[in-house]
Order: sequence, then C-alpha cells, then structure tokens
Amino acid sequence: MSVTAAQGFTASGIAAGIKENGNPDLALVVNNGPRLAAAGVFTSNRVKAAPVLWSEQVVKGGLVSAVILNSGGANACTGPKGFQDTHATAEKVAEVLGHNAGEVAVASTGLIGVLLPMDKLLDGVGTAAAALNEHGGEKAAIAIKTTDSVHKTSVVEGNGWTVGGMAKGAGMLAPGLATMLVVLTTDADVESDVLDRALRAATKVTFDRVDSDGCMSTNDTVLLLASGASRVTPEYAEFAEAVRAVCDDLGQQLIRDAEGASKDIKVEVINAATEDDAVEVGRSIARNNLLKCALHGEDPNWGRVLSAIGTTAAAFEPDRLNVAINGVWVCKNGGVGEDRDKVDMRYREVHIVADLAAGDETATIWTNDLTADYVHENSAYSS
Amino acid sequence: MSVTAAQGFTASGIAAGIKENGNPDLALVVNNGPRLAAAGVFTSNRVKAAPVLWSEQVVKGGLVSAVILNSGGANACTGPKGFQDTHATAEKVAEVLGHNAGEVAVASTGLIGVLLPMDKLLDGVGTAAAALNEHGGEKAAIAIKTTDSVHKTSVVEGNGWTVGGMAKGAGMLAPGLATMLVVLTTDADVESDVLDRALRAATKVTFDRVDSDGCMSTNDTVLLLASGASRVTPEYAEFAEAVRAVCDDLGQQLIRDAEGASKDIKVEVINAATEDDAVEVGRSIARNNLLKCALHGEDPNWGRVLSAIGTTAAAFEPDRLNVAINGVWVCKNGGVGEDRDKVDMRYREVHIVADLAAGDETATIWTNDLTADYVHENSAYSS
Repeated sequence: MSVTAAQGFTASGIAAGIKENGNPDLALVVNNGPRLAAAGVFTSNRVKAAPVLWSEQVVKGGLVSAVILNSGGANACTGPKGFQDTHATAEKVAEVLGHNAGEVAVASTGLIGVLLPMDKLLDGVGTAAAALNEHGGEKAAIAIKTTDSVHKTSVVEGNGWTVGGMAKGAGMLAPGLATMLVVLTTDADVESDVLDRALRAATKVTFDRVDSDGCMSTNDTVLLLASGASRVTPEYAEFAEAVRAVCDDLGQQLIRDAEGASKDIKVEVINAATEDDAVEVGRSIARNNLLKCALHGEDPNWGRVLSAIGTTAAAFEPDRLNVAINGVWVCKNGGVGEDRDKVDMRYREVHIVADLAAGDETATIWTNDLTADYVHENSAYSS
Repeated sequence: MSVTAAQGFTASGIAAGIKENGNPDLALVVNNGPRLAAAGVFTSNRVKAAPVLWSEQVVKGGLVSAVILNSGGANACTGPKGFQDTHATAEKVAEVLGHNAGEVAVASTGLIGVLLPMDKLLDGVGTAAAALNEHGGEKAAIAIKTTDSVHKTSVVEGNGWTVGGMAKGAGMLAPGLATMLVVLTTDADVESDVLDRALRAATKVTFDRVDSDGCMSTNDTVLLLASGASRVTPEYAEFAEAVRAVCDDLGQQLIRDAEGASKDIKVEVINAATEDDAVEVGRSIARNNLLKCALHGEDPNWGRVLSAIGTTAAAFEPDRLNVAINGVWVCKNGGVGEDRDKVDMRYREVHIVADLAAGDETATIWTNDLTADYVHENSAYSS
C-alpha cells in the first residue's frame, strides 16, 4: 500500500544499476493532484547531502509534484558536482513527466563521499516513469532499502481520506531529524502550511525519538505530500493524529530492523521537570554503550542507567531517582531497590522507566542493544 | 615504582576478600611528610559514588595523609549506608595509622549499586597497614585493577624531585573528569594550591581527552599528594610539566588497555576557531560508533568523520573541511580527496586529522575502536 494507499498518487521502484548487485535502487512517487501541497523536515546535521540542500529549497515553495529517491549512494560530501547531479536528476524527472523541476524533490541514501553513476540514474528515470502505477507503492518502498532487511510501509485510514507512507533506515539512526528517508502521502485536501504543522508535530514525538546508535545521518528526509484527491478536508486534530500514527508506526519499524539488534528498548522517562529534560535523559540512557551491551547480555544493570542520567543537565536529585526494568523497580531512591533477579529479560522488548521525581513531564525514546553483529555489519564493509 | 617512586610515601596492596576470586583488592598509600599537601579532581557525573562525595570534602582541606582504595565494588548508588561505609573505612585507616580521618581519602571501583563487604574491608585495612613499605607502589597499582589487563604506573624525575603515579581504568572511560582512579605522588615541596593548579591544568589536556566509550563513571578520582620529602621546591612550569607528563603517560596506558580494543585512535582537530570547538569536534568523532566500527574493520570511512563533525556547534563551513587518515588527505574541501586505497590501516595506531579551516586552535582526543570483544566484555557479566 505504502505511498499509493492515498488516492491521487502513482509510484514505481526499479533497478537502475546504481547498486552493483542489481537490486532495486530507484523509486519514483508522483502526485497527480488535483492539489500538489507538500511539507518536509530534514536532517539537522550541518554536513548535508546535495539532495537535502535541493529538496529543502523545493519544499519551501510548498508544492511537490514528484519525488525521486535512489539507494546505492548518498550523494553526500560530493561537492558542486554532487549538487549538479541532484539538479540534473530533478530536471530529468521534470522533462519525462512534463513537470516543473523546481517541484521535484530528490532523496538519496547509501555510502557518503561517492558520486552517483549519472548515466545509469538518468536512464533509470525514464524506466521508473514508464513503470508508474497506482499500486507501485510497495515496489517504491523496496527500491529505497540499503542495509534494511525489510521494507517499511504504513497506512492509516481517516473518514474518507488516507495517510500512507514508506521509510528506509537501519543504522545511522539518531534524532536531529529523522535520520532516514520517509515519504508520506495523503489524499486529504490540505494546504501545505497545515501539512507542515502536522508533520513537525508528528516527527518531534516519533522519528526524533528513535535513536539506534546516536549517529546522525547527512541525508535524513521526511516528506509529506497531499493530493487532495479525496476532496475531504479533515479536522486538523484528526489529520495530525493520523500523520503521527503513520510516523510512529514507521519509526517502530525502523528500530525493529536496526542493524544487528537483538533487543528493542523503550526508554520512558517520567516525572521530569520539563519535556526537554525528559528527552535529554532518555537520549543519554539510549546512547549509553555500556548499558546497551548489558541489555544485550540480558543483565538488568541499573547502575549504568543512573550513571547515564548523571551526565545530563536535567533537574533531579540523585537520591530520589527510581528505575524500573521490565516492571521491576530495581533502583529506589538512588540505591538498591527490588531484587534484580526478578527481572525477566528473555524477551526482545525491554522497557526501562526512569523516574526523575522532579515534575510531571514524560518522554519516550526508542533504541536497541549494542551487539557483536552491529560491529560486524559496520566494520566488515563500507556503508 | 608507581606511587612510591617519590620520597616520603609508603604503599601496599593486598587481597582483603572483597573480590570473590581472591585477587588483590585493597590498596593503601600513605604520605609520611613532612608535608601533607594534596589536590584532587573528581567525576563531573552528578550521580557520584559515596567515596567521591567523601574525598571531595577531604581534599577541600588541602591535606591528605593517606588514601585507601578498593576494587571489587564501586560503592555508588548505595545511599546513606554506602556513605557510612566510606566514613567507617576512613575512620579505620585513621585509627590504625594514628591519623585524622578527615585527612584520609577513599576511592572505590567495581560494580555500581552493591554495598561493600565491610567486615572484610575493615579487617583488610589492618593487613594493608602492616604491609606498608617504600617499595609497595607496584602492589598498590595491582590491587586497584578491575577489568584492567595490566596495571598502570608512571614516573617522571625532576631535578632532585619526582612525580609518580598509578591508575586503573579499562572501560567507562569518558571525559568529565578522569573516569578512573589515579593517585599521583611527589616529594617536591609544593603547597596544595600549586598542586591543584598543576593537576587541573594537566588533567584538562590528558585524562579529560581520553574517551574510550563515551560513558562517564560515577567514581572518577585523580589525587595528587606532595610529601615535600625532597626539600626541593621546583619552578611551577617545570613541576606542572612533570605532572602533565605523568598524567599523559597514564592516560595513554588507559586507552591502550581499553576493553576489547584493537585500535588506538588519535583524533587531532586542527585549525579550529577555539580550543572548545576543537575539543567538541574531537569528542564527536571519538564517540561515533559507526566510525569506530569502520576503523575496527580497517576501513578509512571519512564520510563518518564528516557526519560526526556535522552534528557539532563548532565554527566550520562544510565545503572547507579536510580529513586525513594515517597521513592521507582522503577528504578535501568537504568532498573526495586522495585515493582512500592509499591509507595503510594495518597497524594498531590510527591517526585522524580533522582540519576545520576556521582558526588556529588544536586539540587531540584519544579513543579506540568498537569491537565485538567490547560488546562481549560488557554483556557477558556485570561490571
């Protein structure tokens, strides 16, 4: 279903030969209107890939008629030539589809610091355009995979309208925005400023709180396109909730597919003085390599949770901190709590609750464990 | 030689039974004067172990007559009982040696969240005091090991005076201060405010720039004790350089013994606008798990260096960044530079130079690679 679940969109995914192994590597998503409204959020990494620089400009206009996405190369740190290549890709899409290049967004993913094989890519644009159809969302989702073991799609149905989407991402997942490629579509009849508001609200509490390895990508892109084809303009709250739900579902799929992971870890920070404090503490816990190793070893090592909390600037008193792992309050008032042997660590999901006893705010960060397989995947070859 | 290289100090290291495997676990270092000057720096983790809270108070007085150090338990997150135990340990040392408990520093290392076996520890204090001698520095250094594969000592000779020291640390190494236990001694005739100035200057550019895994300990302690036994008061600059040299040597030994590491990585940031910028960028590179995996795999993946730089707030322009790995400028002006196949990655030491092209300041951070052995050591058992 993916990006073609909503009316007014066609998509395709093909193998253009960008990946040497012949796997699908080029996806095209087209908004057939009547509306071409769009919003986007992008990586906050200051080293931004050429397609991010391009698409940021495109989205500023509020209109996106098509998105071309390639795997097999990030087109990051590729200098003026890399930017020219992104521009040429958008021009080619515009030419083939009869669109305006300034309304074509581009996204790339793969190895940093390598120029794309432009002859193959430009030829591929023609092939992808010819393959466009109303059921192409699945193939598009497959074509943007890199080290992903599965493709990720999600759909939420509204009252006469739909929000759907696809995502790729399996490593270099960290907040700051998105750290992945995501295209969401809707047939709701919504203007770009509303899309922007709903998308920013959704990503702030979903993709922004997914942190697999603390490593922020140069290519993160999340786009939301509206075709208006349903002729229905939903209530903002209802629409925003649908966008959040799709983002949340895709974010969960990213974490579950994180490179080499054997545990999905939910870090819930409660009773924080502010939401920012809760997020800071959640991130600090989620990025602690020693804790992530301990959880991999099914060791409910709460001392490493306290040690991580202690490095933050959040409001708390060390002797009022409480920590639960899988429902057992192993740390109470900053010291030994219930018997750690009561913690059942056999399952894939691990739930950590860190109680700061400093207020009423809450945030949840998702991460995964640190495993020898992660090391292997990221040391055995360039990615 | 260790802490007994300088005149005026005795030390011992014994097995008190704190470690269940019977290995040495209790060290005592005594300053026999005539001077009892001391300075200390401690973890900046806000969750501080009981011995850190105690020793911070002791050092504030500027006088330390003895240091008692145990491995086998960190006495962190142990509440009021843990603090009482630290206090009782200092009292016992004072009683046995005829000292003032307010001048006895305490340091502990091992698992967080476990109370120490006080009967064994207090009995051990008597045994350790009976074993004190002028050549006991080596045994003391051995008794503070936890997951360390080797004990670490260092000595620098001045003109008629000496600075020596010992350190433990093999994981949970991150700046913020020290992240390890270190005791330095000198027979130079120096007051505590001079010791403090020299120690802070030294740790800022040595231990503070060692970052094995980004995980800051709750127990970091670096103490510098002066006996004045040489009757020589060196020039400040000469003395400070000796302290820095011992700290640098011990810091290097910590990195070389980092858990599971196969590469020692020197991250040199040059042409930064400020020293703080250089340190921030160096740390960001040193903490990037994806880069650390790539270097483990002997892959000179400079894209991950740029990606890490991009997450900082330092002054730089992405298209002016240059990166050298082992002498080869693989990234020039933010893009592809010399052929990455020229980079020889076979040796244990890896030297990364990140040129920010934004000023004249420099900083060097030391780290190591991320390996399956690190995951194993930190997942297979509690530490």
